[in-house]
Amino acid sequence: MTIKLYDLCAADRDLRFSPACWRTRMALAHKGLAVETVPTMFTEIGAIEGGGQKTVPVINDGGVVIRDSFAIALYLEEKYPDMPSLFGGEAGAAVSRFVHYWADGFIDGQIARMCIFDIHQKLDAADQGYFRKTREARFGVALETAQDQSEDRLATFRASLSPLRSLLSKQSYFGGDSPLYADYCLFGSLQWARMVSDLELLEKDDPVFEWFERCLGLFDGLGRNAKV
Amino acid sequence: MTIKLYDLCAADRDLRFSPACWRTRMALAHKGLAVETVPTMFTEIGAIEGGGQKTVPVINDGGVVIRDSFAIALYLEEKYPDMPSLFGGEAGAAVSRFVHYWADGFIDGQIARMCIFDIHQKLDAADQGYFRKTREARFGVALETAQDQSEDRLATFRASLSPLRSLLSKQSYFGGDSPLYADYCLFGSLQWARMVSDLELLEKDDPVFEWFERCLGLFDGLGRNAKV
Repeated sequence: MTIKLYDLCAADRDLRFSPACWRTRMALAHKGLAVETVPTMFTEIGAIEGGGQKTVPVINDGGVVIRDSFAIALYLEEKYPDMPSLFGGEAGAAVSRFVHYWADGFIDGQIARMCIFDIHQKLDAADQGYFRKTREARFGVALETAQDQSEDRLATFRASLSPLRSLLSKQSYFGGDSPLYADYCLFGSLQWARMVSDLELLEKDDPVFEWFERCLGLFDGLGRNAKV
Repeated sequence: MTIKLYDLCAADRDLRFSPACWRTRMALAHKGLAVETVPTMFTEIGAIEGGGQKTVPVINDGGVVIRDSFAIALYLEEKYPDMPSLFGGEAGAAVSRFVHYWADGFIDGQIARMCIFDIHQKLDAADQGYFRKTREARFGVALETAQDQSEDRLATFRASLSPLRSLLSKQSYFGGDSPLYADYCLFGSLQWARMVSDLELLEKDDPVFEWFERCLGLFDGLGRNAKV
């Protein structure tokens, strides 16, 4: 049965840029599960599947509704144990949760600071109003001022990827020889930036850039072929 | 058979402060393995077990010599598969390597910046000379100047622990309900700071502080009862 994924979209409904939705998209592909994506604007999130959520991804798997990207990954792992594992066991899931928060909080927070106005420019008019109001409340300044693409901030961001850079001197993916959910956590972050901004977050001779390129090619180029 | 662990020591040879050695010490305890520690000053590292290393920990397990804390953890996992697992499988080991580098590089780097002169003050005269020379070459300024315990730096450090803080809202340890090697990675970092400096890295109402307290109590208080 095809799983329905409510997937954040831009004014161009084919542009799907949410880092969290990308984590789920990759997890579904990893499990080899068929998916039907439902383009969903920020201002449409509250009404999907009877309401009750402020964020996507949300999936509906044959009537079972699951919210939150990490909860979805745990659900898929339990529901489809015979498909390729996302975590390689309970310990893998527990430690991957740290990578989830590292990407979802620490890394996404930095990317938001660098690309917040670029994101705004991709949204349709209703979403722009919502987005400006909620994000300006968070940053305390206008989006145009909050966005900081300075060399300093970029250098700090690149330095913060040093643990992955070191890891990649020993193995090809967070998951070892092949990708696991932990890889999709950071992939979502970088794919988000790639889709909304022209800012070059990574230098081309960075092992992290090479890892990201490998991830873009996974599942017949699912990430690379997505509309930008 | 008792495993020999070459363990970095201060002028007071009972003060064992190395973050990497603490990772190994906890891993050995997790595996329930008997250990004989050999206090080793910086300037003694080059000569142990026939030489060939610049860093500790080094272990000798019945004639098998292993260097580097993460390599030691992998070795122990493979050699003693019937003792409690440090990783919970291959995927767990692969993802834990990321936590290793996060602690060993990103976190330890910040602690070094805050405590570098405090460390120096704990060393004996020969080690002080070596330490000052190598670390001042790294920082480009005198240790007294390099050490920065400003509120700004402390705030940045605490913010960088946010992924763990989020994790702890869901589970008790990196490993889930009980600790795994990933926990010992960061434990080593914080134990290092605790042993060499009076700086209070963590606020007492921080979930990370509570997690660290739990780790100090593991294995009959191995961390808490160590001489400071």
